[in-house]
Amino acid sequence: MDFADFFPVWDKLKDNERDKLTAYAKERRFPKGSVLHGGSSECTGLMLIRSGQIRAYTTSPEGKEITLYRLFERDICLFSASCIMNSIQFDVTLAAEKDAEVTVIPSEVYKSVMNSSAPLANFTSEVMASRFSEVMWLVEQIMWKSFDSRLAAFLSEEANIEGSNTLKITHEVIGNHLGSPREVVTRMLKYFADEGIVRLARGAIEITDGTRLRAIAE
Amino acid sequence: MDFADFFPVWDKLKDNERDKLTAYAKERRFPKGSVLHGGSSECTGLMLIRSGQIRAYTTSPEGKEITLYRLFERDICLFSASCIMNSIQFDVTLAAEKDAEVTVIPSEVYKSVMNSSAPLANFTSEVMASRFSEVMWLVEQIMWKSFDSRLAAFLSEEANIEGSNTLKITHEVIGNHLGSPREVVTRMLKYFADEGIVRLARGAIEITDGTRLRAIAE
Repeated sequence: MDFADFFPVWDKLKDNERDKLTAYAKERRFPKGSVLHGGSSECTGLMLIRSGQIRAYTTSPEGKEITLYRLFERDICLFSASCIMNSIQFDVTLAAEKDAEVTVIPSEVYKSVMNSSAPLANFTSEVMASRFSEVMWLVEQIMWKSFDSRLAAFLSEEANIEGSNTLKITHEVIGNHLGSPREVVTRMLKYFADEGIVRLARGAIEITDGTRLRAIAE
Repeated sequence: MDFADFFPVWDKLKDNERDKLTAYAKERRFPKGSVLHGGSSECTGLMLIRSGQIRAYTTSPEGKEITLYRLFERDICLFSASCIMNSIQFDVTLAAEKDAEVTVIPSEVYKSVMNSSAPLANFTSEVMASRFSEVMWLVEQIMWKSFDSRLAAFLSEEANIEGSNTLKITHEVIGNHLGSPREVVTRMLKYFADEGIVRLARGAIEITDGTRLRAIAE
């Protein structure tokens, strides 16, 4: 994968700008479960996701979690370089949901090119607007959707990501995605099981009626 | 108020860029209660708030509302020009909470300058990052705070904005700010009244113990 695969404006950058971005970039690997970036204290750099799956989430003072969005191959992670903008006044934690290969461009390098390049600055705005749109979708889900609908949407999305109707995921992990206690997840999954929509096994959930699951999600 | 009061990067723009932004700008007035921008269908333009108070909110399919953030004098409203970025995939409604005087820069004019000017593009990113931070604050409030705490924070903020401990606001309007049914607001206000924190009158709420109110908000 090339830088041009991540930056659609790559050919609008000047030679010295391209050189600078590539010269300082470093390859890194993050095993499944590891934290790539934790809160505001760090400003690791812009991350280009070459492979794997990254979860962006926020935590309560008591350690509760809710997933904001996920990043996949060819996505760019902006908030691991939040210091490139003064106005980013919130903390996002990033963790690898699957083994990940990432190219890191140091924040100060990226910032210096962005400061002089209108194409890169505008592209960065677009990346931020995408994440903003995902968080706005989340706000609408939390505010206007019932929990059964949010759980059904999550399970459908997981099946879609994994390409399988059997999901190896615990009730606690689902709770952390949705910002809900494990017991609430377990209760709703049991209801889905009673209705014949899923089958529950130890450490796994099998979707047996995907059509109805998607209907509940709508 | 001058354009330089809104754009800290004004002196970094070229003469022709400054001329373009000012030449096409139009003054508009929005009386209290009017909608400046409604959803994605319109792309009115970037709005510079010269005076007044603007509320940005999102609505459910059933017409329920929740306030995302508010804009005051010297603020810039970006989402009334959401078509300047392809990746803004959500709808925000903007309404005047107080009579407002606004300078509107047409979206295509702003976009054309932003496309060539790195300073303006980076400044636009900062404006978006500010709004993003406010929405992230909202997510954390909704997810981790109890309703009494959110209501107390709202009343404290209102008293702060109005410079008065007597707020002329209905329970329904408060509900629309917080995304909660009127009855839930009324019940909690009655609890606050029983505790001696507020005094309730027809169409008005008087804060009688601001210290305790702020303590509940924390």
